[in-house]
Formats: sequence, structure tokens, C-alpha cells
Amino acid sequence: MGIWFTEKQTAHFGITAEILQTHVSEQTAYQKLDMVETAEFGNMLLLDDMVMTTERDEFVYHEMVTHVPLNSHPNPEHVLVVGGGDGGAIREILKHPEVMSATLVEIDGQVVEYSKQYLPTIAGALDDPRVTVEIADGFMHIAESENRYDVIMVDSTEPVGPAVNLFTKGFYEGIKNALKEDGLFVAQTDNPWFQPELVHQAHRDISATFPITKVYTCNIPTYPSGLWTFTLGSKRYDPLQVDESRMKRAIDTKYYTADLHRACFALPKFVDDLTQTTQEEN
Amino acid sequence: MGIWFTEKQTAHFGITAEILQTHVSEQTAYQKLDMVETAEFGNMLLLDDMVMTTERDEFVYHEMVTHVPLNSHPNPEHVLVVGGGDGGAIREILKHPEVMSATLVEIDGQVVEYSKQYLPTIAGALDDPRVTVEIADGFMHIAESENRYDVIMVDSTEPVGPAVNLFTKGFYEGIKNALKEDGLFVAQTDNPWFQPELVHQAHRDISATFPITKVYTCNIPTYPSGLWTFTLGSKRYDPLQVDESRMKRAIDTKYYTADLHRACFALPKFVDDLTQTTQEEN
Repeated sequence: MGIWFTEKQTAHFGITAEILQTHVSEQTAYQKLDMVETAEFGNMLLLDDMVMTTERDEFVYHEMVTHVPLNSHPNPEHVLVVGGGDGGAIREILKHPEVMSATLVEIDGQVVEYSKQYLPTIAGALDDPRVTVEIADGFMHIAESENRYDVIMVDSTEPVGPAVNLFTKGFYEGIKNALKEDGLFVAQTDNPWFQPELVHQAHRDISATFPITKVYTCNIPTYPSGLWTFTLGSKRYDPLQVDESRMKRAIDTKYYTADLHRACFALPKFVDDLTQTTQEEN
Repeated sequence: MGIWFTEKQTAHFGITAEILQTHVSEQTAYQKLDMVETAEFGNMLLLDDMVMTTERDEFVYHEMVTHVPLNSHPNPEHVLVVGGGDGGAIREILKHPEVMSATLVEIDGQVVEYSKQYLPTIAGALDDPRVTVEIADGFMHIAESENRYDVIMVDSTEPVGPAVNLFTKGFYEGIKNALKEDGLFVAQTDNPWFQPELVHQAHRDISATFPITKVYTCNIPTYPSGLWTFTLGSKRYDPLQVDESRMKRAIDTKYYTADLHRACFALPKFVDDLTQTTQEEN
């Protein structure tokens, strides 16, 4: 039946996909990197044996990590992506005419290089003149930035390996400092089925730092459980009170819509329960 | 690494789950039936090697197939479930105090029997005095019913095997006839990632029969792609214009909320596109 890849999303459950060919399989300075062609999802990037993105379903993650925060800010001129070396978030950011600069800080240069080579529909926008690609530690870039960005997206891997510092209170405080006085940010915060504690902790720690903190979700078939969360922290703007004219203008999307901008914040009850902070935690 | 079950959700992609023990594995008069204990999702019912329900994630499907239509009807007294032999939809229906009778028409008596034995938290409500369980062909039951039900749920398997007749225009016309003059129904209509044509056809055929037709979604980790659609057809009531007091009253749920009742109808753009009927089809 051919060659199949299996990602154990938990110790007892996973997804499996038929592989037509392996383009790259190497240990970079930071992680194991595989670029494979799958029969169902096209080319697929794996880091430490976890699916990062695929040609077929990448649009969901990349549209939802960008258009929700960008349409929640009235004038996002300077935007930072931490991680996201595949370039998909940058591609979506550049669809917003207000954006003057988009900076990508990716720790692993190999992710950028192989994405350009094997995921051109995702990484193609990295050569745009508005884009700066910096191969560096996102944690350090944040620590060294002050009052600089309107919107920041944390497009990281799971909190194991190189991204472990990106799920800490200290990092969220650094983001607050790196944002302008009316800035906002969003982080991918994993899934509520298999990582409920992570969803809970991220919300607790971000809401300790930002006055407006909200969780939203989307469906990504190749991510654990299919239900993915993002947590948005904002100094001033409420993502549910946005400029209708901004939302309705024509941005070419396959997932995000103005209606979904609001609807994605309506959480299933068991997910909403994870956003409650207990008395002990206060 | 133990015994693992793999469901190929497409020819090239699937899920895989560790199995602790197999309770039942038999060919019934209608289909292959397996009841297994998984490490991640508890007991799991498989029909023709496809996951039907699991103890851990069943609440999503069963809450969403019932509370959305029931809260869209002002007085759902008589309710029918076609299929749904595990009893989960019946359990949720009985949470509505207006319901006087809940009829389950399941073609395969073995599904009911084994669900009572191995899925008691799902099937336990089947013994309630308001419930009638009929082991019969749902298509025939619908054909013989007239002006009888307020709400009907089609909780079927995929349109292969015994459920093939339940995805036809003739069936939807039968449902219209079996409903009272202000009745409404909902059918599970598969997933838009791997079965886009099915989602499209169901919407096209139901909207040809019912003046109000709307698609909504939910996330089910063990179902293909994780993104599941339901299509609601209604003679009079719009599910987006419902009685707020009905929605806000206390029904014990883990997924459904009043906010989600509205939000679940906001479709990702590529799903909304599937609800468009082409000129050729008109």
C-alpha cells in the first residue's frame, strides 16, 4: 500500500498520510526537518515529526492568524511575525494595503530556504520589497524591540524544542513592550482536545498582561483534533468591535470572511471553560 | 507498540487509534459492526470500518444535531430521529421539556443493542418512557408518515451501504410530507474537505424542497477532516431568528451555547461556496 507517514498527535491517536516522495529529510541546527509530497495534501512541511503546513490546507491557518488581528487594528503599518518561516502569514499580511513593513523573525534558516524551494505558493511573498526576513531568535528580537510594531503574530511550533520560550509570561510581557501603545498580538495556542492545559495557561498568562484577551478557533484537518485555537491580546482595540468597512473590503480569501471574524470567537462551551481563571490562580 | 486501528478517511489519508480491547466484531444483517475500547477516546463504535461515535467526543455531534433544530422551533413536541441507533441524539432531545414523544427509527437492531451494552452514557436515555425505538427502514417510516413530526433529525451513516437512500431528493420530499406545516429537519451532510460534492448536492436538493435551507458546522476530532456539516431545511422558522429566551435557558451542554447557535452558521468561504447553486443546476 505504499509509504505512509504517521504523526502521533497523542500517545494513543494520530493521523496517517500516504507519501509520494521525500524531498528533504535532515537535522537542522534546531530541529528535524522533513519536506514530503503527500497524495492528499500536496507538499507537507514537518518539524520534529509534526505537521507544520501543507499546500492544500495551509490557507486556513495563514488567513486566520493574520486577518483577524489585522482587521481588528485601524491602521496596521508595521507588522512582525515570530516564527512562520514558511512565509504563509507574510503572504496574507501583504494583502492589507495599510502594511508598510512586514518583518519575519525565524530561528531556523533552513525552514525559509526549503519553503521557498518546495512551497512556492506559500513562501513566494517573502521576496516582496516590504518584507524583511531575519534569521534570529524571536524571543531576543522581541526583548530588543520597543514601541515598534502595530501587530505581532506568534506563528510558532509547539512549546517543545526551539519554541519553548514563546509560551511564557516573560515573552508576553516582551511583546507588550515591543508593541506600540495601541498594538495587539495573536499567538497560536494549540488545541483544546489534547492540550487543554496549554490553552488555559496561554489565556491566563496573556490576560494577565493585556486588558483585552480573547480566544478564537478554526478548523485545520492536518492539525491535532482539527480544532485550533489562537489567543489575541490587545492593548486598546476589541476584535469584536471592528470597523465594518475594513472587514467588508475585498481581500481574497478561502476561509476568512467578515461573518467568520465575529463567529470564530464564539467558543464551544468546553473551550470557553478553559478561558476561566480559577481563584487559586489569581 | 500494541494494536492500532486505522480508518482511511480518503484513499490517501486517515486517522489511527490505539485499541485496548475489542468488545464486538461482527457482520450484522446490514453492515460490519465493531465496538472497541480505544486508549484516547474510550469505547468507539465502528460501522463498515468508519468511526460512528466515541465516548469522549460524541457530545459534539449529538448536541449539534439536536439543539440547533430544536431551539429553532417554538414548540417541538414530536421528534423523530432516523438512524442514530447509539441513542445520543435521543438523550439530548429529552433535555427539551416541550418534547412529548421522541421516536428512533434505526434499521440495524444490533447497533441499538451493543450501544446499550457498551455505550451506556450515550444510549441510556433509550429506556425513557417518552421514547419509542422502532427497528425499521427509516426511508419507509418517512414514506408512511404524514403531518406527524415537528422536528426530524437524519442521523445516518455515509451514503454507502444501508443509508444510500437517505441522501436523495425523494427522501427529502418524504421528510417534507412527514413534517407538520411548520416543521423543520436537519441531516448530517459529511465534510467539505474530502466530500465537497456531497455537501453541495445535499444543499442543492434540500433547498429545492424547503424554503429555508442553511448549513452549519462543528468540530469532531474523530470524523474526517474534523469539520462536519449539517444541513437544516425548514418550512417556516429561520434558525437565525430564534427566541432568545429559549436559547438562554439552562440546557446542560459541553459544546452548544446560544452564541454558538448563531456562530455555527457562519461558514468558511470555501464551504459557503459549496452552497451556491450553479445556473446549469437550476
